[in-house]
Amino acid sequence: MIFLFFILSVACFSQENHSHGVGRKLKFPDIPGYKTMKCDFHQHTAFSDGSVWPDIRVMEALMDGLDAISLTEHLEYQPHKEDIPHPDRNRSYDIAIKEAGDHDLVIVKGSEITRKMPPGHNNAIFLSDPNKLLVDDSIQVFREAKKQGAFTFWNHPAWAPQRKDGIATLTDIHRMLIKEKLIDGIEVVSDQMYSDEALQIALDNNLTIMGNSDIHKLIDWDFKVADGGHRTFTLVFAKEKNAGSIKEGLMNRRTVAVYRNLLVGRDEFLVPVLENSLKVTSAKYIGKYDVLGVEVENVSSVDITLQNQTGYTFHNNNEIILLKAGEKTTIEVKTIERKTEVSLKFLALSAVNAPNKHPSITIKTKIEATPQQ
Amino acid sequence: MIFLFFILSVACFSQENHSHGVGRKLKFPDIPGYKTMKCDFHQHTAFSDGSVWPDIRVMEALMDGLDAISLTEHLEYQPHKEDIPHPDRNRSYDIAIKEAGDHDLVIVKGSEITRKMPPGHNNAIFLSDPNKLLVDDSIQVFREAKKQGAFTFWNHPAWAPQRKDGIATLTDIHRMLIKEKLIDGIEVVSDQMYSDEALQIALDNNLTIMGNSDIHKLIDWDFKVADGGHRTFTLVFAKEKNAGSIKEGLMNRRTVAVYRNLLVGRDEFLVPVLENSLKVTSAKYIGKYDVLGVEVENVSSVDITLQNQTGYTFHNNNEIILLKAGEKTTIEVKTIERKTEVSLKFLALSAVNAPNKHPSITIKTKIEATPQQ
Amino acid sequence: MIFLFFILSVACFSQENHSHGVGRKLKFPDIPGYKTMKCDFHQHTAFSDGSVWPDIRVMEALMDGLDAISLTEHLEYQPHKEDIPHPDRNRSYDIAIKEAGDHDLVIVKGSEITRKMPPGHNNAIFLSDPNKLLVDDSIQVFREAKKQGAFTFWNHPAWAPQRKDGIATLTDIHRMLIKEKLIDGIEVVSDQMYSDEALQIALDNNLTIMGNSDIHKLIDWDFKVADGGHRTFTLVFAKEKNAGSIKEGLMNRRTVAVYRNLLVGRDEFLVPVLENSLKVTSAKYIGKYDVLGVEVENVSSVDITLQNQTGYTFHNNNEIILLKAGEKTTIEVKTIERKTEVSLKFLALSAVNAPNKHPSITIKTKIEATPQQ
Amino acid sequence: MIFLFFILSVACFSQENHSHGVGRKLKFPDIPGYKTMKCDFHQHTAFSDGSVWPDIRVMEALMDGLDAISLTEHLEYQPHKEDIPHPDRNRSYDIAIKEAGDHDLVIVKGSEITRKMPPGHNNAIFLSDPNKLLVDDSIQVFREAKKQGAFTFWNHPAWAPQRKDGIATLTDIHRMLIKEKLIDGIEVVSDQMYSDEALQIALDNNLTIMGNSDIHKLIDWDFKVADGGHRTFTLVFAKEKNAGSIKEGLMNRRTVAVYRNLLVGRDEFLVPVLENSLKVTSAKYIGKYDVLGVEVENVSSVDITLQNQTGYTFHNNNEIILLKAGEKTTIEVKTIERKTEVSLKFLALSAVNAPNKHPSITIKTKIEATPQQ
Repeated sequence: MIFLFFILSVACFSQENHSHGVGRKLKFPDIPGYKTMKCDFHQHTAFSDGSVWPDIRVMEALMDGLDAISLTEHLEYQPHKEDIPHPDRNRSYDIAIKEAGDHDLVIVKGSEITRKMPPGHNNAIFLSDPNKLLVDDSIQVFREAKKQGAFTFWNHPAWAPQRKDGIATLTDIHRMLIKEKLIDGIEVVSDQMYSDEALQIALDNNLTIMGNSDIHKLIDWDFKVADGGHRTFTLVFAKEKNAGSIKEGLMNRRTVAVYRNLLVGRDEFLVPVLENSLKVTSAKYIGKYDVLGVEVENVSSVDITLQNQTGYTFHNNNEIILLKAGEKTTIEVKTIERKTEVSLKFLALSAVNAPNKHPSITIKTKIEATPQQ
Repeated sequence: MIFLFFILSVACFSQENHSHGVGRKLKFPDIPGYKTMKCDFHQHTAFSDGSVWPDIRVMEALMDGLDAISLTEHLEYQPHKEDIPHPDRNRSYDIAIKEAGDHDLVIVKGSEITRKMPPGHNNAIFLSDPNKLLVDDSIQVFREAKKQGAFTFWNHPAWAPQRKDGIATLTDIHRMLIKEKLIDGIEVVSDQMYSDEALQIALDNNLTIMGNSDIHKLIDWDFKVADGGHRTFTLVFAKEKNAGSIKEGLMNRRTVAVYRNLLVGRDEFLVPVLENSLKVTSAKYIGKYDVLGVEVENVSSVDITLQNQTGYTFHNNNEIILLKAGEKTTIEVKTIERKTEVSLKFLALSAVNAPNKHPSITIKTKIEATPQQ
Repeated sequence: MIFLFFILSVACFSQENHSHGVGRKLKFPDIPGYKTMKCDFHQHTAFSDGSVWPDIRVMEALMDGLDAISLTEHLEYQPHKEDIPHPDRNRSYDIAIKEAGDHDLVIVKGSEITRKMPPGHNNAIFLSDPNKLLVDDSIQVFREAKKQGAFTFWNHPAWAPQRKDGIATLTDIHRMLIKEKLIDGIEVVSDQMYSDEALQIALDNNLTIMGNSDIHKLIDWDFKVADGGHRTFTLVFAKEKNAGSIKEGLMNRRTVAVYRNLLVGRDEFLVPVLENSLKVTSAKYIGKYDVLGVEVENVSSVDITLQNQTGYTFHNNNEIILLKAGEKTTIEVKTIERKTEVSLKFLALSAVNAPNKHPSITIKTKIEATPQQ
Repeated sequence: MIFLFFILSVACFSQENHSHGVGRKLKFPDIPGYKTMKCDFHQHTAFSDGSVWPDIRVMEALMDGLDAISLTEHLEYQPHKEDIPHPDRNRSYDIAIKEAGDHDLVIVKGSEITRKMPPGHNNAIFLSDPNKLLVDDSIQVFREAKKQGAFTFWNHPAWAPQRKDGIATLTDIHRMLIKEKLIDGIEVVSDQMYSDEALQIALDNNLTIMGNSDIHKLIDWDFKVADGGHRTFTLVFAKEKNAGSIKEGLMNRRTVAVYRNLLVGRDEFLVPVLENSLKVTSAKYIGKYDVLGVEVENVSSVDITLQNQTGYTFHNNNEIILLKAGEKTTIEVKTIERKTEVSLKFLALSAVNAPNKHPSITIKTKIEATPQQ
């Protein structure tokens, strides 16, 4: 029996499904020069070892407000082969495209090259024909992907079944693949696995920083959406919202990975994303006192934690401040003397630009004139 | 990447996923002589026109605390045939059984016989071999099901695509099938479609009253589980928790369909389910006054609405009382004179035993002796 | 230490304090010819036996979105007399008025005449000088109130300490007071005490139906505001929002008492309040079927329960429908034939116009033309 | 009308009033050698400039699960004097003691000495007769308090009305009072005002670190209890739960102030409170991998944020970890080699022992033996 109107129900659902201040739809502001694309480029369906038909992945993406996805079925690992003996590695994509219909969701063809370590598992996205990647040689498959213009990245390098101690480590084969520009990026977060070592490898080797859900079952369950959770995903900073621009952004390492409330990326993108996520909605001295109230709205979907580097102390907080997603928070700054504008510097503790290192951001604002006496 | 421990995560999830007083796991008390089995015997997966692999249906059932399910793929309607060209109609069941493993979940083989009206769609469950039901003749297929010992029921007789005005109506073919005992039951609720006319047909023709989810996508989405919703399902009153006993219960019409907070059934089972769902946890006069406080705990997963037929008026309520699922409510009864026991009669407005008709239930309790002065 | 900005914090608080679909601020629509005033005319502060200073009562009222209140201190019962030996019964009012400042909240002078039964406790509101009510004679005090132009009502006639069995009953003195127009109204609900007998007395004697909180401690605690509860209060239908109009409305019995989700009143006002609370936001046939979807938004702050009297059956419900406060619900009506407008009749089970009797309301709507084939 | 059973309703309420994992009742574990007493020693009622009768303060304390309170009315500031012309500064205490009845709540006599700066506002608690503190001389009043055996502390030294820039600063008079042991402690947090400078003064001058609500209106409103907030309060480490032991703890600086999720204190007490708040509930290697899962339950009422100093990296987190109040969190530690026990060192970012300085804590645990292959 099929008598539901899905489009409507998605719209309704995404609003009601959340007891938290922010809805289910993920939100991040654009940054100067770029549109901020929310992307999840590592997902599975029944066409490899996932547990859903591709339409569910499209619906999840729409509910989450994503801009782009890829269904990256394992090329070589096909546990449902007995039931789905499809020789065509385009099927998952074809079904998803049809489901997406007129929705403003970019779906790109992708596949997971699934090998023993090294080189382990790697995704190739923006493929034209995944079927051509069904080649034995673990290097040759990358060359084929590149021939098709793919963007490639090393998946979950810290994955324990392939690296018993969970320490992401480059092998000679990886070094060669990187050197020959056959690997472009690396998952610093995959599902709920974060790796400082992978982040260091990205930085040392000039790789694109990636975060993806690697979802097999349901986003709602694995990421506890009803409790306010969200999937792991990647912000890509693109000139336009289309596949070509997103690929160009990935190729040029313009990304920030998002894992729970943690942002992982390079300062060049972390800083503007954070600064644009924090809008000053009011700045004025409180009453006739020399205590400045700076009301900041966090317009992003993640809680942001800041450490005071302003040179002032605060009247309502110690040096660490939590700015909750979707909420307004007033920081009371003791400026000693009245000022007409301030430039407040913070370390963003909930973001990392390298293992154990956090970006510096600045909140600048003019101060509304109010009577001092 | 697969590195999760699902058993654990199900346990955790089912507790956290609910902001309401009751958890996600559905609860109904046993009744005298029978165990109360929570069953959903109409579900789909990718093996017909559903959007999930069978393992998801098993996980949903475990999270919901169900006792028995059947994955009733359409025998004739196979929209995923291009990708899943399985000739074996047992596959969905086989995969589910494997997923269920040691869990205490009864899974029975079933299929949806999918024909034009009449006879429309009908489920046959407790089959031994669904493949043998792939016969053209719309009557013959029922005979084959019965040969295998199946329990059969007419699905969503009010379904608009087969009955434009939504009015469930018996045809001559249905009358014949019922007369020849080829149809045993009827869905009075299917998904979120309730039918007074179907209920009347059940009563007039001595059919088993059924309610099922007819789920195609996800239980969490279609039934808004995060907002406190639950799937449509059937309580079957069985001597033991096993397939044979459940079938025996179905065959003998020992059921109550559950749709949101509505219970639909025959008085013989509605009344004990309601009465056993309402436990008196305290009954004593308040202070030195002649107002009796009867504290009642609703141990079921549905809100129960009662209409006063006690002959007394209440001190904290008009004649209609809402007893919320999982909560304790005190009914303050003005008995005029002090009593040592009471027998309070109510009409259960949130249950129907016929179109627009509600069962009468009685809450009996001894009263704790307390000083009157 | 006082360094808070209350006006702002009230605004914020009222939005955040509620996990439910509707906020804390109570909402009811105006009805033809009248503004709907939300009033609570029975409250206490430290100036009699309450536990708060009058400013708290004003803040509670503002948070709840009330239009009018009265702080009706007991004239004769002054348990805090040792600490507050005030001879002036205007103090509570004076402090409240100052606190209310520019807020659009009507505060009227009132007192509770606190006598043994009969005549028990009675409120006189719209007084000019409560001090003049400090007279011994239980009848004379009403005459003084009336001399000041007061509206008077009998408080909680079912109160067990004055009526052991909780049965509100007229005495000869009450009959005389009513006959001489010294009592104008009666509390049918007081705090969380509802009385069918009081309602019958109101109807038999042409008295104004009242519901009030009779709050002594905190509204938030006694009425579980954090869990979605609200105080007991009275809707008064007034020509304008001012003390004079509200008094005129009370004198002419234009009221509905609100207790949890229950509305108590005369059909003349119950029916338009209910009908205006239910806005049809869409009415069209679903797909090409003959099932009419009527989407209704409940714009009031109470859940409304309706019983089907339309002559049609529903496709998604039995005959009893719950329309949650602040939510949109679609009623699927099986009209058999396509229509261009409908007039749907319901019994409003969550409202009473007499003991065990419910008003009939009608939802009328034109139907949007949609293709049938 | 008074017909409620408050004791019961407090118990119920405290459980239902919270949508969060932890209830409203504040919880902190005892530490070796001491009982952990939750105290709020700065509160107001209508007997100075507060807005409630003392009974409300007792109910709030019981709901919050406090062990000890003091109602510290302003001795000199009596804005309600016109209505409450009480000459006896013991009244607030007397009423509270009566309300507390048999509850296990310690109530100590206290007063706020309310002077211009210097010395500003100071509390004296554990007084025998507050009336004797009604002396003009700002030094003499401390001597009288000390004569009665009081514990004294400087209130909100950063309060803008007395220190326009909000910077807590010692004056000569304060230095003298401290030197002569007339001031024992200082509020580092008062209401929602935190002061790094006050903390530094406490450390430099060997004063007891205090945090209090300084409540005037309602705890529920000012600290947003319905949204999961709680009042500012002080943990006192006492040998027994009684007034004498608590005073002895205060005199010996055995305190931690609690403000939202922030703990402020000396390492000697911060460290054991944090370490005892984090219970290891399981520690074993995950599967056959060399990744150690340490499940930690945070049994306190505050979220605890830790920064990794273990020397290992984590498999599911970067170096900063949030351990939510009342929840279990698994830290996945990449120990490289299998171990039989670990000692994990963290910086507790959500606690401060000096401005911008955080205590180090250690989570020690044996590791359950599990197969490696």
